Amino acid sequence: MPERIIADTSRRQFVNDPDDIVEEALEGLEAAYPRLIRWNRDPSFVTRAQPAPSGQVAVISGGGSGHEPLHVGMVGAGMLDAAVPGAVFASPTAGQILAATQAVSGGAGVVHVVKNYTGDVLNFEIAAEFATDDGIAVRQVLVDDDVATASMTGDGPGRRGTAATVVVEKIVGAAAAAGADLERVAALGRRVAATSRSMAVALAAGAHPGSGRPSFDLPADEVEFGVGIHGERGIGRRGFASADDLADQLVRPLVADLAIGRGDRVIAITNGLGATTGLELAVLHRRVARILDAAGITIERALVGPYVTSLDMAGCSVTLARVDDELLGLWDAPVRTIALSW
Amino acid sequence: MPERIIADTSRRQFVNDPDDIVEEALEGLEAAYPRLIRWNRDPSFVTRAQPAPSGQVAVISGGGSGHEPLHVGMVGAGMLDAAVPGAVFASPTAGQILAATQAVSGGAGVVHVVKNYTGDVLNFEIAAEFATDDGIAVRQVLVDDDVATASMTGDGPGRRGTAATVVVEKIVGAAAAAGADLERVAALGRRVAATSRSMAVALAAGAHPGSGRPSFDLPADEVEFGVGIHGERGIGRRGFASADDLADQLVRPLVADLAIGRGDRVIAITNGLGATTGLELAVLHRRVARILDAAGITIERALVGPYVTSLDMAGCSVTLARVDDELLGLWDAPVRTIALSW
Repeated sequence: MPERIIADTSRRQFVNDPDDIVEEALEGLEAAYPRLIRWNRDPSFVTRAQPAPSGQVAVISGGGSGHEPLHVGMVGAGMLDAAVPGAVFASPTAGQILAATQAVSGGAGVVHVVKNYTGDVLNFEIAAEFATDDGIAVRQVLVDDDVATASMTGDGPGRRGTAATVVVEKIVGAAAAAGADLERVAALGRRVAATSRSMAVALAAGAHPGSGRPSFDLPADEVEFGVGIHGERGIGRRGFASADDLADQLVRPLVADLAIGRGDRVIAITNGLGATTGLELAVLHRRVARILDAAGITIERALVGPYVTSLDMAGCSVTLARVDDELLGLWDAPVRTIALSW
Repeated sequence: MPERIIADTSRRQFVNDPDDIVEEALEGLEAAYPRLIRWNRDPSFVTRAQPAPSGQVAVISGGGSGHEPLHVGMVGAGMLDAAVPGAVFASPTAGQILAATQAVSGGAGVVHVVKNYTGDVLNFEIAAEFATDDGIAVRQVLVDDDVATASMTGDGPGRRGTAATVVVEKIVGAAAAAGADLERVAALGRRVAATSRSMAVALAAGAHPGSGRPSFDLPADEVEFGVGIHGERGIGRRGFASADDLADQLVRPLVADLAIGRGDRVIAITNGLGATTGLELAVLHRRVARILDAAGITIERALVGPYVTSLDMAGCSVTLARVDDELLGLWDAPVRTIALSW
């Protein structure tokens, strides 16, 4: 390997006015996938092109943009009924969330899948209160899988919500499609969230639209460990040895925190944070699979690709979600969205 | 927009020994998707985990690695029976292609979908000759969609093969799955290839594994227009104005070269070349859709995402493939691969 150069890695971006990027992107996605999604421009939220049969629990998620394909890419049969996108790395407003909740409510209640960030939690809670006043029963499923921030659990906001959101949204959506009632759908979502953990590492930060500049710089030969999906700095800088070494450092805290071992079963996501190539992700996943195999833990299903990104960050996260036959059956249930389909 | 900084954009990569990246990635993909693919290590090729029913025409593609999810991500029911990966940006050997051809031949003949590069064409032709000697009927479908290199058609190798490969592979695979015979499958593939065109632009080059350095540098405020998918320089440098302006410059040559207009119908792919964010691609696609709509051309189906990449190049290509009811029906036919599924 050549010496790594510390440099400004700014680049041009495919944007017009940076202030319009989220709206223009939503218009573009709707134009591309009119059979899957509909965009409500004001207030901004995205629903399924073909609404779910009435009488089903509706499932909504949302959060800041910049994590594509999350969340809009998860809208469709068997997964989300609506996604509520905020500005880049910013929570949607309570007004947006309320409007989406009212739009998809089919009388059986609405589940809000919320990543654990102060702004998101607050705005989803406000929207839920208004929806309740409006006669809509809402249950929140909080996703807080990032073990990097576990040590802050005492006084801080606790673990951040990252790529386990994909697993929660899939399983909650499948339960709703199968006709489970509100309490049951919410309980399943909470069970998945409680037994899912993630950890991320960055080789280079992403750049905010309009800035072109990475949100942090890295010294030569170091990686940002425990990085978040909003350009937050990680929990520490570590030397770069190899992909295998980094995979080890990502997986071992997950196994420890979940207290899983021989005989346990998981869904594994080796997730690209934006600029990571398919080759790199597959190389990382190879090691993830080897580590778990050696520990006697079975990867029942896996995803390798960009599912929860941080703009064009060069980085990777690994998510392990513990599953049993029931959760696996819900994971395997049919789904048809932009990002997941089977 | 701030001034763009010209800088060395090298970064660490998730690799172990760069010489092992393709093999390790294939092992990782097989570990992640054992229900979809099988990797034959030596000679290296990837087949469907569940072979197609015998009696069907088999469809094979391949080429250099570094374009993931192409081609391995297109292996599965309704698309490719096998993919033959070369080293990064290098053709697979004739021996690999022959072995894959023999492995998936079901007696009804084999179609080779080949991107138009000298090495790929040569090695697929050699393999086809040996397969023919072995009693296997082979037909080649050449994909040459890149209008950037159209001017070289006289003496040069002609248009390069790029993202139209996805459309050709999907439609050829669907025809084979529907039981069409060898001549018919090949003819459909050639028809799609003949009426598909692509153009690409890069904001920053990708970096070869182990190098960490981009394959070319760009001056401030310029983009590389007509760039290839192997780090080749483009046909010219142009000023950067906006995403919309670049989309215009990508789409207009395709419409002109295909000689399409009011009443014509297309499949459109707004394809990320590696490091381009989902937001950027959707912003570009918005403009692609507006241009075509204004011209009276109907986008029947679209894909927006990374399908044919060039490592971590920051760039985008647009592909238009003219379709009629027959081709659209084959596009819509069920498919189950890592990259495409419906």
